[in-house]
Amino acid sequence: MSRVTFVPAEDRLTDQIAFAVEIDKLKRIIRRNLLMDGSRRENDAEHSWYVATLAMVLGEHAPAGTDLQRVVAMLLVHDLVEIDAGDTFIYDPVAVAAQVEAERAAADRIFALLPGEQGARLRSLWEEFEERETPEARFARALDRFAPILANHHTEGGTWRLFKVTAAQVMEKVRLIEEGAPSLGAYARALVEESVAKGHLSE
Amino acid sequence: MSRVTFVPAEDRLTDQIAFAVEIDKLKRIIRRNLLMDGSRRENDAEHSWYVATLAMVLGEHAPAGTDLQRVVAMLLVHDLVEIDAGDTFIYDPVAVAAQVEAERAAADRIFALLPGEQGARLRSLWEEFEERETPEARFARALDRFAPILANHHTEGGTWRLFKVTAAQVMEKVRLIEEGAPSLGAYARALVEESVAKGHLSE
Repeated sequence: MSRVTFVPAEDRLTDQIAFAVEIDKLKRIIRRNLLMDGSRRENDAEHSWYVATLAMVLGEHAPAGTDLQRVVAMLLVHDLVEIDAGDTFIYDPVAVAAQVEAERAAADRIFALLPGEQGARLRSLWEEFEERETPEARFARALDRFAPILANHHTEGGTWRLFKVTAAQVMEKVRLIEEGAPSLGAYARALVEESVAKGHLSE
Repeated sequence: MSRVTFVPAEDRLTDQIAFAVEIDKLKRIIRRNLLMDGSRRENDAEHSWYVATLAMVLGEHAPAGTDLQRVVAMLLVHDLVEIDAGDTFIYDPVAVAAQVEAERAAADRIFALLPGEQGARLRSLWEEFEERETPEARFARALDRFAPILANHHTEGGTWRLFKVTAAQVMEKVRLIEEGAPSLGAYARALVEESVAKGHLSE
């Protein structure tokens, strides 16, 4: 008995379901950083939930007038391209440069699974995040950088120690947080200083 | 050197960070259902990402006038109480009944980590989801029920086969989907019928 017998094909819902099935793969893309208890590495899907929820929790630290609902939407889709392109460790500059083209090709494939205008709308959220020109994108990016700092601070250095990252490198990321959310940047800076003082991060 | 030296205490941000650290635990609450490729069981955090993203992708199937942004917010927080109360298998009625009090106690503890009015606001989203009286809550609940059906359909019966669930039991959940989103309910019904026809779900 063919699938067509039961499920109507060639309509918008069919395309949306194909996209829904595809994006389930985000749960299997593994990031470098650890859960807050250090028990295992995090995947992109749970990371995306975490930062989208942080946008609700920490929204008042965004500049006045920031559209937090667009921030949440952006964070829900910001890592989908990694289904094809994989996760890139932000402290590996060679990998970061090679990633740009791979992510663009991934966006071409994945968002095109959706009905045309809907795929374009979700893709534009991803592009906005990447371009970091709007307050929404800068705040979203700040949260994306803030979360691993919080996790590393809670795991005695976590990936900083594992991959021999220095405080100077982390402070570059702190500057991105400050650009998107000054008070979160100040908080992240304090966490980094405390991690150095405790010997969990080398200077 | 004490923590107080670096990080200002007793402000809103400190409480919000305590909440942020707490909710990371959602990544370790394991649900019954499997990923779409059957490789492992899903956790609550990645499930929450998935259904929140489905709300964006399938939003046009909600009744006209549904506030999709509130649906997304609701789905981001809907499982936080399971940090204390654990996941309940929806086909186990005894466990479902016992769960109500445990979840209420969990909500009392977890949302209270936030500044007062913010904790009350997020808690009310969870309560709205549980009460299923608004179109937003019914649509959110429909997505929460739709996702496992899609996953079971893609894993040759998945948890239906593992836990000997029948089509009649699944159809009760399909009715909840129909209440929140008629076209998704019809689609889910077709998936269930197809699963029965293929022998992946017993009648």
